[in-house]
Amino acid sequence: MPALSVDLNADLGESFGVWTLGDDEAMLDIVTSANVACGFHAGDAATLARTCRAAASRGIRIGAQVSYRDLAGFGRRFIDVDPEELTADIVYQIGALQALARVAGSNLSYVKPHGALYNAVVTHHHQARAVAEAVHSVDPALPVLGLAGSVLFTELERLGLRTVPEAFADRSYRPDGQLVSRRESNAVLSDVDEITDRVISMVTEGQVRAVDGSMIPTEVESVCVHGDSPGAVQIATAVRERLVAAGVTLGPFSG
Amino acid sequence: MPALSVDLNADLGESFGVWTLGDDEAMLDIVTSANVACGFHAGDAATLARTCRAAASRGIRIGAQVSYRDLAGFGRRFIDVDPEELTADIVYQIGALQALARVAGSNLSYVKPHGALYNAVVTHHHQARAVAEAVHSVDPALPVLGLAGSVLFTELERLGLRTVPEAFADRSYRPDGQLVSRRESNAVLSDVDEITDRVISMVTEGQVRAVDGSMIPTEVESVCVHGDSPGAVQIATAVRERLVAAGVTLGPFSG
Amino acid sequence: MPALSVDLNADLGESFGVWTLGDDEAMLDIVTSANVACGFHAGDAATLARTCRAAASRGIRIGAQVSYRDLAGFGRRFIDVDPEELTADIVYQIGALQALARVAGSNLSYVKPHGALYNAVVTHHHQARAVAEAVHSVDPALPVLGLAGSVLFTELERLGLRTVPEAFADRSYRPDGQLVSRRESNAVLSDVDEITDRVISMVTEGQVRAVDGSMIPTEVESVCVHGDSPGAVQIATAVRERLVAAGVTLGPFSG
Amino acid sequence: MPALSVDLNADLGESFGVWTLGDDEAMLDIVTSANVACGFHAGDAATLARTCRAAASRGIRIGAQVSYRDLAGFGRRFIDVDPEELTADIVYQIGALQALARVAGSNLSYVKPHGALYNAVVTHHHQARAVAEAVHSVDPALPVLGLAGSVLFTELERLGLRTVPEAFADRSYRPDGQLVSRRESNAVLSDVDEITDRVISMVTEGQVRAVDGSMIPTEVESVCVHGDSPGAVQIATAVRERLVAAGVTLGPFSG
Repeated sequence: MPALSVDLNADLGESFGVWTLGDDEAMLDIVTSANVACGFHAGDAATLARTCRAAASRGIRIGAQVSYRDLAGFGRRFIDVDPEELTADIVYQIGALQALARVAGSNLSYVKPHGALYNAVVTHHHQARAVAEAVHSVDPALPVLGLAGSVLFTELERLGLRTVPEAFADRSYRPDGQLVSRRESNAVLSDVDEITDRVISMVTEGQVRAVDGSMIPTEVESVCVHGDSPGAVQIATAVRERLVAAGVTLGPFSG
Repeated sequence: MPALSVDLNADLGESFGVWTLGDDEAMLDIVTSANVACGFHAGDAATLARTCRAAASRGIRIGAQVSYRDLAGFGRRFIDVDPEELTADIVYQIGALQALARVAGSNLSYVKPHGALYNAVVTHHHQARAVAEAVHSVDPALPVLGLAGSVLFTELERLGLRTVPEAFADRSYRPDGQLVSRRESNAVLSDVDEITDRVISMVTEGQVRAVDGSMIPTEVESVCVHGDSPGAVQIATAVRERLVAAGVTLGPFSG
Repeated sequence: MPALSVDLNADLGESFGVWTLGDDEAMLDIVTSANVACGFHAGDAATLARTCRAAASRGIRIGAQVSYRDLAGFGRRFIDVDPEELTADIVYQIGALQALARVAGSNLSYVKPHGALYNAVVTHHHQARAVAEAVHSVDPALPVLGLAGSVLFTELERLGLRTVPEAFADRSYRPDGQLVSRRESNAVLSDVDEITDRVISMVTEGQVRAVDGSMIPTEVESVCVHGDSPGAVQIATAVRERLVAAGVTLGPFSG
Repeated sequence: MPALSVDLNADLGESFGVWTLGDDEAMLDIVTSANVACGFHAGDAATLARTCRAAASRGIRIGAQVSYRDLAGFGRRFIDVDPEELTADIVYQIGALQALARVAGSNLSYVKPHGALYNAVVTHHHQARAVAEAVHSVDPALPVLGLAGSVLFTELERLGLRTVPEAFADRSYRPDGQLVSRRESNAVLSDVDEITDRVISMVTEGQVRAVDGSMIPTEVESVCVHGDSPGAVQIATAVRERLVAAGVTLGPFSG
């Protein structure tokens, strides 16, 4: 059954030192959940502190966007990390952001894997389990955003954790429900009308067209939008407006 | 008045990836407080997780040994960090270790600056205030280990935080009570008898001989020992035994 | 005596991974010398390779912009590095860029310290000597850009190295000829007319007004312009045009 | 036909900051070629400079041990790096070590991939080509140490580069000639007699027993020994003595 209420999430806090990325202030006026980087793929501590304060001052929920340790690759390169190390890396990142969120007067509301780790845990059993165990060990009440049908979700559910399936507004899907890799030329969509049409279809009809033309089922409690370019902010705005116009309530997913 | 009970602290968790430093297992049988690195000068997350588990399993208290961001320099080089950045860096580190300590079944009991940061906040007002504000913002109940008479202690006390003055077993002191810099040849003592004599003097008489021969007053609630070489572990053992023989009770400082 | 020919240099290759900084293509059409980052304060290797190729294809000379090891601080924070380590760090950076420049079909033509290191070696004897020895050990024929009157220049000249005094188009000067620190509000100028007037004064009259209103002598073989914002590129263009209009020939400093 | 002369190589310069690894001085008295780390998996610049000086003073040849950018994982974790980035990373590392070797009075004599990169380029076409192109672009006369039959060797030979097949003294082999992964319990051998027997078999008979008991052919111009533990130095010494006793001449492979 289609959702009548949906969460909007975006990646924030992804600047590093002098280097800025994305318009966090603009995005915080659009989304209902902020995936804040944790320093491993982006986000020096001062940037993260500012992002947490900006989110907290607007009452936007903060999630920990956990990643492989890879600033040079922005967390977009698969790394064959040992599960024990990955679990510790995830706990470390969640803890760091938790403290920054609390100091900003907020708290940590959820976890979302980033980039290559996000993609890996769709199918990689050892890494999926490592992530699930990390979240569970820190706080079994923390929900995790991810892809419905992923091995990560299986591992999380095995531990009794809350999984939040999300859809990507501007990414194309394979027939098996996975994202087309960023290395493919058709991975990221840019046409506003196509993007908003797809979001409406995913959220209200529970389906979307895959790259091979077939319709695949989607399970959506949150829609991921991006804000790393002026065009991206515009698209995110359009997604929000189109959802509101379609009578969908925007608000955080249930805890 | 001399203390009849004293805490023993040491730096632990200072390995990084394949590189090991110190005999953490041996030191955990000697000390009553473990200053665990937080990843900025040493300590990959898996190492820190193991160290926290080893401390927790022995009931040894865990403190966050916070540092400048400087793996290549092991946190031993002064860095002219902006106070806002330093505050965020400290919050980040405390949060990361807090999560690792909790996952290990323990908790974070105190904070201690490391290396060049430790020395800087003895006199550097902006950095001292930045550290004090970071600890206060995370948890005003967290005690901080440091040098009596330091600007850091002034700043901490201004915010109502608990300060724990410590003495260094194997370091020589300047007449003003500060440590002789590691760049000086006489900074680190190595003679076991001299070291244990000095510890007894500092703990039971409240004084120690400075490098110029003068006696200076010491205020000691904790004694810092090192464990980064076989010789160091031997010295730490001797310090512990000598204190016990002198009738001093070893135990954690009060919260 | 005022110069009738002057070099124009700018910092390039300062992006890192996904993070971009500056408009390198635009700046390469303005300057006659490209200070390319070496990976320690900015510049992943792929960025540096691209920058070297872009410079080589235009026949613009490549210099190594060497720095403290500090990505998080963009090399703008003083670090109290041991001279032996600093020398090795500089050799390492020069060698890395040398290979990238050669692979791009060019070569390394000079060295310029970056950021906090640039400022430190104006007065810091140990670090100035460490930099001078590093350059000398790699190639005694490599010229070094810096501040006239700096300790670095004294050390370089002692070793027989070629020093190239430069002026900063958009920075304000102290009465002693040093740059006003970036932490001061008046460190960086932004008014195009003021900037171009000052450059003309520095290049053709050999003097400039310091922040206290006094005129100080300047010795200029190269003028440093910036390109890290759209406004900066505009200013750099104006500086170039104004120099040309004043009859000054723009071209690389002599080897 | 079995070799009557063979090279002995080992990984050196793998300390980082305060963390030491291996006994470089001892190993330099055993080997004929030193694979010196380049800072990406190990080796701060000062360590690398010292290692190059120690090798140069003994007349031991220096090779660049190039790696993925991964200090936390010591280069032992596969990273899915884009070929363009990998090529630039390799050029950068070779250049850095080249400068350090020259400053030490020596030069760079060869290249050898490290750890997970070494294993990846046995079969990974894109990364193998990226490495081959990097070496070729810096200097087509640089030989490369690696595994006979690897994709890397195919790519190197396509570009006309010199390939040097090596055997590992203390590693077990799969029936296809590849190394058993370090994640397997039987990956690394420790029995001195077994190790020296295998080396003699590989060097003088051109074959070795794989983990499944089958004999596989080996092509050996260099034997890799390790020095990262007291036991390892002992083994390396035994390998050297056993080869000499068998009448094999130890010396650098031909250029």
